Amino acid sequence: MTLNNSLNRKLRMAMVGGGRGSFIGSVHAIAAQLDHRAEFVAGALSSNPERAKESASDYGLNPDRAYGSFDELIEKEKALPEDQRIDFVIICTPNDSHYHIAKAAVESGFHVFCDKPMTLTLEEAEGLADIVSDKDQIFALTHNYTGYPMVRQAREMVMAGELGEVQAFRSTYIQGWWRTRLELEDHKQAKWRNDPSKAGAAGTFGDIGTHAYNIARYITGLIPKEISCQLKTFEEGRALDDYGHAIVNLENGGLGTITCSQISHGRENDLSIQIDGTLGALEWRQEDPNELIFRKNGHPKAIYTRDPNAPFTKPISAASCRLPWGHPEGFLEAFANIYCSGYDAIVDQAEGKKVDHVNTIYPNVNDGVEGMYFLQQCVESSSQNGTWLPMKHERARR
Amino acid sequence: MTLNNSLNRKLRMAMVGGGRGSFIGSVHAIAAQLDHRAEFVAGALSSNPERAKESASDYGLNPDRAYGSFDELIEKEKALPEDQRIDFVIICTPNDSHYHIAKAAVESGFHVFCDKPMTLTLEEAEGLADIVSDKDQIFALTHNYTGYPMVRQAREMVMAGELGEVQAFRSTYIQGWWRTRLELEDHKQAKWRNDPSKAGAAGTFGDIGTHAYNIARYITGLIPKEISCQLKTFEEGRALDDYGHAIVNLENGGLGTITCSQISHGRENDLSIQIDGTLGALEWRQEDPNELIFRKNGHPKAIYTRDPNAPFTKPISAASCRLPWGHPEGFLEAFANIYCSGYDAIVDQAEGKKVDHVNTIYPNVNDGVEGMYFLQQCVESSSQNGTWLPMKHERARR
Amino acid sequence: MTLNNSLNRKLRMAMVGGGRGSFIGSVHAIAAQLDHRAEFVAGALSSNPERAKESASDYGLNPDRAYGSFDELIEKEKALPEDQRIDFVIICTPNDSHYHIAKAAVESGFHVFCDKPMTLTLEEAEGLADIVSDKDQIFALTHNYTGYPMVRQAREMVMAGELGEVQAFRSTYIQGWWRTRLELEDHKQAKWRNDPSKAGAAGTFGDIGTHAYNIARYITGLIPKEISCQLKTFEEGRALDDYGHAIVNLENGGLGTITCSQISHGRENDLSIQIDGTLGALEWRQEDPNELIFRKNGHPKAIYTRDPNAPFTKPISAASCRLPWGHPEGFLEAFANIYCSGYDAIVDQAEGKKVDHVNTIYPNVNDGVEGMYFLQQCVESSSQNGTWLPMKHERARR
Amino acid sequence: MTLNNSLNRKLRMAMVGGGRGSFIGSVHAIAAQLDHRAEFVAGALSSNPERAKESASDYGLNPDRAYGSFDELIEKEKALPEDQRIDFVIICTPNDSHYHIAKAAVESGFHVFCDKPMTLTLEEAEGLADIVSDKDQIFALTHNYTGYPMVRQAREMVMAGELGEVQAFRSTYIQGWWRTRLELEDHKQAKWRNDPSKAGAAGTFGDIGTHAYNIARYITGLIPKEISCQLKTFEEGRALDDYGHAIVNLENGGLGTITCSQISHGRENDLSIQIDGTLGALEWRQEDPNELIFRKNGHPKAIYTRDPNAPFTKPISAASCRLPWGHPEGFLEAFANIYCSGYDAIVDQAEGKKVDHVNTIYPNVNDGVEGMYFLQQCVESSSQNGTWLPMKHERARR
Repeated sequence: MTLNNSLNRKLRMAMVGGGRGSFIGSVHAIAAQLDHRAEFVAGALSSNPERAKESASDYGLNPDRAYGSFDELIEKEKALPEDQRIDFVIICTPNDSHYHIAKAAVESGFHVFCDKPMTLTLEEAEGLADIVSDKDQIFALTHNYTGYPMVRQAREMVMAGELGEVQAFRSTYIQGWWRTRLELEDHKQAKWRNDPSKAGAAGTFGDIGTHAYNIARYITGLIPKEISCQLKTFEEGRALDDYGHAIVNLENGGLGTITCSQISHGRENDLSIQIDGTLGALEWRQEDPNELIFRKNGHPKAIYTRDPNAPFTKPISAASCRLPWGHPEGFLEAFANIYCSGYDAIVDQAEGKKVDHVNTIYPNVNDGVEGMYFLQQCVESSSQNGTWLPMKHERARR
Repeated sequence: MTLNNSLNRKLRMAMVGGGRGSFIGSVHAIAAQLDHRAEFVAGALSSNPERAKESASDYGLNPDRAYGSFDELIEKEKALPEDQRIDFVIICTPNDSHYHIAKAAVESGFHVFCDKPMTLTLEEAEGLADIVSDKDQIFALTHNYTGYPMVRQAREMVMAGELGEVQAFRSTYIQGWWRTRLELEDHKQAKWRNDPSKAGAAGTFGDIGTHAYNIARYITGLIPKEISCQLKTFEEGRALDDYGHAIVNLENGGLGTITCSQISHGRENDLSIQIDGTLGALEWRQEDPNELIFRKNGHPKAIYTRDPNAPFTKPISAASCRLPWGHPEGFLEAFANIYCSGYDAIVDQAEGKKVDHVNTIYPNVNDGVEGMYFLQQCVESSSQNGTWLPMKHERARR
Repeated sequence: MTLNNSLNRKLRMAMVGGGRGSFIGSVHAIAAQLDHRAEFVAGALSSNPERAKESASDYGLNPDRAYGSFDELIEKEKALPEDQRIDFVIICTPNDSHYHIAKAAVESGFHVFCDKPMTLTLEEAEGLADIVSDKDQIFALTHNYTGYPMVRQAREMVMAGELGEVQAFRSTYIQGWWRTRLELEDHKQAKWRNDPSKAGAAGTFGDIGTHAYNIARYITGLIPKEISCQLKTFEEGRALDDYGHAIVNLENGGLGTITCSQISHGRENDLSIQIDGTLGALEWRQEDPNELIFRKNGHPKAIYTRDPNAPFTKPISAASCRLPWGHPEGFLEAFANIYCSGYDAIVDQAEGKKVDHVNTIYPNVNDGVEGMYFLQQCVESSSQNGTWLPMKHERARR
Repeated sequence: MTLNNSLNRKLRMAMVGGGRGSFIGSVHAIAAQLDHRAEFVAGALSSNPERAKESASDYGLNPDRAYGSFDELIEKEKALPEDQRIDFVIICTPNDSHYHIAKAAVESGFHVFCDKPMTLTLEEAEGLADIVSDKDQIFALTHNYTGYPMVRQAREMVMAGELGEVQAFRSTYIQGWWRTRLELEDHKQAKWRNDPSKAGAAGTFGDIGTHAYNIARYITGLIPKEISCQLKTFEEGRALDDYGHAIVNLENGGLGTITCSQISHGRENDLSIQIDGTLGALEWRQEDPNELIFRKNGHPKAIYTRDPNAPFTKPISAASCRLPWGHPEGFLEAFANIYCSGYDAIVDQAEGKKVDHVNTIYPNVNDGVEGMYFLQQCVESSSQNGTWLPMKHERARR
């Protein structure tokens, strides 16, 4: 977390979407700037001009660079001198506009941090991945939960073989906020999430199922073979799923399960994962993110705590901490870690270092493709009563 | 918990199986006598004569009534005067002998407490249910987890409508003790559990899957429609499954999932269930059995504790407690509650009261049939790669 | 847990007090018989003749041996032939009668299991200890929390030096049931506990403070030097303390604190202890008794679970378990462990083995003396605004 | 969290101390800017010129305003035009310099955010409070734990009478990092904390005891009457205490206890508090900061979660949240809440509103005086073997 690089300056950022009333816009703004490595200089914060203006003021933007539309933002920023122009764009609009914005940003030479799910359809996702591959911009997808130090610790422990061969995972993401039909009220979040033209073909599975799948893939590295899915809509009249369950047969013979709900009373944001290996097992819960449980028969249950100074902490996990043990870090800090990892890549590239765009610490455009493939196959499998469909995509990490 | 009934004496019990070295035999012996309502007077504790003798001594049995075989036990006990003869038989042999023993006991006029799964096959189970229905003996199946006060509390809360309509459950039972191939060592428990001729067609699903399914059915009362299952054998060379997952489509449109493992490192006996209703949600964990979590949007998370004196405690739950709040009750006490409920029925019957053999507090012979149906359909579905099979049995509770 | 000893029979027990309506009587009856090592043959269960009779029936006692008074019990039992006569007496009357009963029992050749606090005054306690020392009877005091397997595990870990030198303990026992003046209602437990002539000079500290002090002494073995205490009565009009706090200076320079409440809303039976050593630290909570937390800088937090088969489990802890890991054992099982340890000593003595009456696994008459000394010094210190008073008694374990 | 105020700009901040290698400097820098309400424009970050320069670069400071000393900072900033000059100074140097820096800053017209303990001695603290009272600057003391939403919720619940009369608190702060003599190694934090000329007369009690006392006072509002304290130095050769315990007699007859350790193996940053009232009881733990436990006899244990949208959340608690329920907020966010509350006061003052400097949401200079009084009386009482000393200071909140 230092500016002592060849740039010797903060990166300049613009945000698209995320104006007043947006939960995730505020999250991106805080996370991107948390470690003093970026400054917020431009934005196209809302399609509503008045809200765009107010939102710019919230973030202390110069009115000159508070643009009325994304197209204007791109055009004007490209025209600025290099030492004023933005370095990267944050996309936190509803899913339907991601593709257009990301494409234009990348093609204009800007790096991109994009919210998930990456696009509206798999086709768009694959198209975007092609574009990104052709260019040399950094593209990070904010599957933010992979930014938690203990998630990264888990991944490193798996890669170091401390679990032996991984044979099973159980990934669950349980919420309760969508128990009632908030989309019939003036509830912005619920409205677009229940609109297939904005959210895509999946509701709850698009919103949180992709996270549950992504974190399992991120930590275990296991390659999926085929998937079977059941999506449910428990609130009558809702356009999209609000509950769902998928089973994944893994290439190595293992089995993964993914269960998501947004209709479970009183459940907050309960993403959790359990991983079984031949030599040990891991468990992690997002609502208790500073702990990672490691179990091994014949040994006491071991609680690994987020502790940058502990001998058992892996370097990447230690580097993802700002605070000593016992000083809880949370959601914003994890989110900021995605940004920091992206910034590292941006700086490396600016310094002329060779940058690997595929095996990244941060979720990238290929992870975005895989997420869209996951959603497409889940929706299709569910519509066929859970028939097995292929789940291995050529762009998937391995 | 009183003898002040028309019998005015302790019930007399015999145990079949459960000799020295048997975990479950000792559990039955303690549970059945915990509340001073039964005395252990006879047994056929082992097929090995020496072990049978030693075991009889462990339990303080009169050597005259420590029989060499079950058949001898039945014959000799029937010949005793009514005021000495046993009242009931506890069956805790491996699964393959349950049917024969239970049948003979019932037909000889003895009540039965039988370990689960009830029989080796569905056919046997149905046959046994027919026999029991013809007679008037009490038949209790020790799905012991239903004896926990907070499980009974949960059931009562569902029945009282406090959750609204139940739409989903997630029942999991995760253990780790069978991670390695203990059946190749001199490990009695592992050996018979891996032998289809003794354990039946399912391994882990037979051992603990039936519990996970039963508790969901017991608490929610939801009627299953069809089931899809994946059984896995992660330890190479093992004859039966050691991991599995089933999905249940419910008649009311809901969805249930059941996940079981015996190969998850360091996991002890982690049966847990989450239940989602339209008005509230419940969560319970066997390893923390004195608590029941109730959640409702807009309200603080409520921890119901096992407390016989609390105004929120349902009568049946209160009656299942021996101790005030904060004095942990555990596995043995829950097990004993199954016995107490069975004893109540035995006494009622002896007093000439009309006894309902179908809607019982304790799991009964019909629940045993449903458990065997569950296993049969799971094994069959799994062998067909998860095809959907019917799951509603005519004998199932509703 | 076997009868295979030279006696080759169950021990015969009588209970004094503990009739219907007594919480602790039922606990003793279950605990003493849990492992089939004793049979309940006689009792003087209540000073109220009708209740005595009903209570005898509850426990299935032969009416001939349901005596009307303790004196009658002693007289009649002494007159019985040796092969029918009781072996031991359980005392669970209010504190004021303990001395008289225990004295008579011991002098009549019966072993004794006595509830705590041991007597009404220190003088009585010392007198009783003198009597017991002169005889060769087993005298066990039911500081039942020392019977938990993980408490015994903790003690063994301390003795094995795994904590290094112990320098501090924090022992707390927090309840809420006495928040209101139940003694003004018809509440049997509250009534005698608020009556100095029955309960002694301390209320909450007598009831639970002695447990909190005893468990710290039992686990750490640290020798106290002096004590300072503050007792409070928060409910106006109450005769005795309902909250209190004591500090103990230890001979080795360490510091212990003891905090007890019976007026903390919603708190159940929350006895817990934290112990700091130079090499490691332990934490245990009675409401979660199957776990013991061990911490050591630079290592993950280690949760030792009650597991008779784990390599890290000390033999005495393993021998105190009836069930495998994950099958919760609770209050009754711990209570029963006190009985089992006492039975072992009784059998050893009957077999002519040399029995150590001082360094016992179970709390003994000397621990009872120390408990009464603790109460006397606490009450006295508190009345002098916390002045330091000596706390090392010559009979205290070391 | 908005700039839409009459200033319509970010506040300009300078930091004194907190250069590279300082844990708390980085915390202040992040927290002060987290909500985009301040920009970091100047600093005197280290007395070591090279480290000062590097540190300035870490924070992206303009080298022109990276001063070599605090005196230079004050002089130069005062000389800047009003629209460039800093608004406030953050003090995160060792305790010995706080007084001098704070005095100069306030007298120069700058607002101050000062780390705790406020000064080296009570005399300094009282002097500083006099100065601040004479001026009209905002002075906030970073007793950061009072910034947690659930701590503020607790305070509001107490003030609303939901606990009835508060009679007892148990405040504990347990750490383990100082178990060994790190001060003998090159450990910056340990070195100055063990140096009375820099840390003051107390070690652990100065470092964390003040927090434990402050949070109890902040939440309960109870007025202390007198205090008795025992400080211990368990690591031989250490200059200051590393363990301690204090008892507080409260004006209303209640009792509070404060226990602190920095030598408890494996304990992280475990500040926790339990509060007993006549109508209810509260419990909160810093390591699990998003929850607040409320207990009331006869009701299920209620877990209040940090949820800005819940009907049970008090307005000030809701306003202290950035994220919805289940998205953990931690230490930095709580710290930032202290800054936000201070900023609100700064803006109010700039807008000409009347500002109350005494009953503030944020800890203020009077709280700092009370903290120093607490330390002085603890050290003195401990040196007199725990004699009772007065504890009510005329400047203390009530």
